Amino acid sequence: MVYLTRKEHFNAAHKLFNPKWSKEENESVFGPCANENWHGHNYDLYVTVKGVPDENTGFVYDAKKLGELIRTKIIDKLDHKNLNLDVAFLEGQLCSTENLAIAIWKQLQPLLPANATLHCIKLYETPRIYVEYFGE
Amino acid sequence: MVYLTRKEHFNAAHKLFNPKWSKEENESVFGPCANENWHGHNYDLYVTVKGVPDENTGFVYDAKKLGELIRTKIIDKLDHKNLNLDVAFLEGQLCSTENLAIAIWKQLQPLLPANATLHCIKLYETPRIYVEYFGE
Amino acid sequence: MVYLTRKEHFNAAHKLFNPKWSKEENESVFGPCANENWHGHNYDLYVTVKGVPDENTGFVYDAKKLGELIRTKIIDKLDHKNLNLDVAFLEGQLCSTENLAIAIWKQLQPLLPANATLHCIKLYETPRIYVEYFGE
Amino acid sequence: MVYLTRKEHFNAAHKLFNPKWSKEENESVFGPCANENWHGHNYDLYVTVKGVPDENTGFVYDAKKLGELIRTKIIDKLDHKNLNLDVAFLEGQLCSTENLAIAIWKQLQPLLPANATLHCIKLYETPRIYVEYFGE
Amino acid sequence: MVYLTRKEHFNAAHKLFNPKWSKEENESVFGPCANENWHGHNYDLYVTVKGVPDENTGFVYDAKKLGELIRTKIIDKLDHKNLNLDVAFLEGQLCSTENLAIAIWKQLQPLLPANATLHCIKLYETPRIYVEYFGE
Amino acid sequence: MVYLTRKEHFNAAHKLFNPKWSKEENESVFGPCANENWHGHNYDLYVTVKGVPDENTGFVYDAKKLGELIRTKIIDKLDHKNLNLDVAFLEGQLCSTENLAIAIWKQLQPLLPANATLHCIKLYETPRIYVEYFGE
Repeated sequence: MVYLTRKEHFNAAHKLFNPKWSKEENESVFGPCANENWHGHNYDLYVTVKGVPDENTGFVYDAKKLGELIRTKIIDKLDHKNLNLDVAFLEGQLCSTENLAIAIWKQLQPLLPANATLHCIKLYETPRIYVEYFGE
Repeated sequence: MVYLTRKEHFNAAHKLFNPKWSKEENESVFGPCANENWHGHNYDLYVTVKGVPDENTGFVYDAKKLGELIRTKIIDKLDHKNLNLDVAFLEGQLCSTENLAIAIWKQLQPLLPANATLHCIKLYETPRIYVEYFGE
Repeated sequence: MVYLTRKEHFNAAHKLFNPKWSKEENESVFGPCANENWHGHNYDLYVTVKGVPDENTGFVYDAKKLGELIRTKIIDKLDHKNLNLDVAFLEGQLCSTENLAIAIWKQLQPLLPANATLHCIKLYETPRIYVEYFGE
Repeated sequence: MVYLTRKEHFNAAHKLFNPKWSKEENESVFGPCANENWHGHNYDLYVTVKGVPDENTGFVYDAKKLGELIRTKIIDKLDHKNLNLDVAFLEGQLCSTENLAIAIWKQLQPLLPANATLHCIKLYETPRIYVEYFGE
Repeated sequence: MVYLTRKEHFNAAHKLFNPKWSKEENESVFGPCANENWHGHNYDLYVTVKGVPDENTGFVYDAKKLGELIRTKIIDKLDHKNLNLDVAFLEGQLCSTENLAIAIWKQLQPLLPANATLHCIKLYETPRIYVEYFGE
Repeated sequence: MVYLTRKEHFNAAHKLFNPKWSKEENESVFGPCANENWHGHNYDLYVTVKGVPDENTGFVYDAKKLGELIRTKIIDKLDHKNLNLDVAFLEGQLCSTENLAIAIWKQLQPLLPANATLHCIKLYETPRIYVEYFGE
């Protein structure tokens, strides 16, 4: 079993905001992250798949194809977007990095073949804050 | 003459948008950067001052004080903000990284002492794109 | 279950030195790290907590609060300090990065809530050497 | 149990090429990586060992000795080499990063003492692609 | 005047080898870099242009277009190639990083408009070695 | 004219302390950097030389030789040392990063050949603070 990781990135706007709360409650909990005019990040996304290297290629999965899969299924839907307003697969969810990582997992997991199963979504919000989700 | 550089960072939303143009013209020129719902970045800001090290401290300028100056005068006004809507010193300007660097220069330059003059504002929009402004 | 990691840093002096050994024995085992006049490092500290994201915030733990906890309980006691002389919670211990990571775990673990348990202390001594401790 | 990681690096040429296939088949599967005139990478290698810190040193393993072991047993055989032509321990294998990580594990694992067992070989082919192998 | 920099990268094989010298002389001067079976690198390329930001866009030059120019004119000709064998614009030249930077300058300089003149080619051979060329 | 830069690093202890001042004055000016028990850093040192590439090698200067020069003349004297106590060429100087960069320039400048003159000493004290000295 070998783990293969591919890094991609996207830039997006968002705010942390719970629609069940007042503006004051949101500001009290989320601080400047609740700014109603939005803020944004350069997100770094690491996708890890695991499997046994193929006998004919030496690959768990073709890293070039993995990059294309991530870009067409995830990056194209998130890059230069507003995560609260523009992304169908995030609709109705709080825009935390935790929830974003889980949502990316749910998008990618069904698209990977049995011999290269999804192992981890690692998502940097800033160079000093990141989350990891392993599917359970 | 020694050059001292201090790095700080901020996260912000913006869009590239010329109000003299139609939505279509803006999209044609700025592409996804014109998304009317905004996008955002983790900006890295490098401020360089130059001078002769002080005889009693060995400092061109106290790096701790330089950090505080940048944070109170620049970062506090940009971090978790919308650059098009929330920042008085950017009002009426196109929100390119070039213009942002020039605007930061204009804010900081008058605040530095004669023996530690501002030399360069270097601003990363993404890890792969940055601008530098030397005041002329 | 989602894992949230926050990076902080501190600068400190130390030496590797076993008081049960002679100066020669220490130099033989620890080499230049035993320099009696000390040396030092810029340490990077990554603290990982794990839990289920809260329904109302989307957070495993507020990353801002995690940063404040790390800074007040760990960084303030280590930054610009001599690890062999100035730190109560390291007293009587050999100053290896391994031992330092375990000691940081012991300080932080009791301070975290049940829904965001400590998962890993990762500590870089240099950009090329780091240790990880998972509490067992 | 503490995990200690040491980073080393090497520069090498290789191509992805399955000798059982025609030139066209290789190009179809491996794309530009099959260039018969080779291409190359700056590989970053992270070796992680695990164990209980020694009572007299505080070390799982002396990081300096770990570096020397990696350099003499691995780096000296890979650095400035052609991975397909010059490396005895890669002979007859497809030159994927996955296979290279497994081969490095097989070289290093028998050389480590019982109290600092090999835990992971992590190998960056580019800053955006890496693999990990845990020995099983 | 503002300076805009765009980073791109490529992976390539090469060797340092002066055809006027014997194999022994080459090995004596270039050491392992003269390995006749080649070695390779992940090159990082930084291209800096300078100019006055355009009144209607705020751009010195569109960073997206600059990236496309670098990729089509430079990266496509160097990536996954052998610098000694596969690159028309390097023919007959010694494959040092210095010469490569000058050759990239000569390719790009005529393609840039008068209002965004080429200022610097900065080329990393490894994370610890880079060269800069300013056109004179 | 091409500029060649080589990065090296060292770890050292120091304190900021002016012997003409009282302990209180030192603490007032230098804050925690004046800790009498020392603190330390992982310093990154970038040395830039400039010249015309040699016709027979394509080199401004052999990067390998430049690395050896920096290591034997600078790194060996600073690494795992106390900058205030252990370094002959820093004796009697305040231990600021500015002064350290100037002192390194003075050590290296006479050792470089006429065709590869020293251009810049760039010294990182932390990942967020660095100084540059160009010899005048």
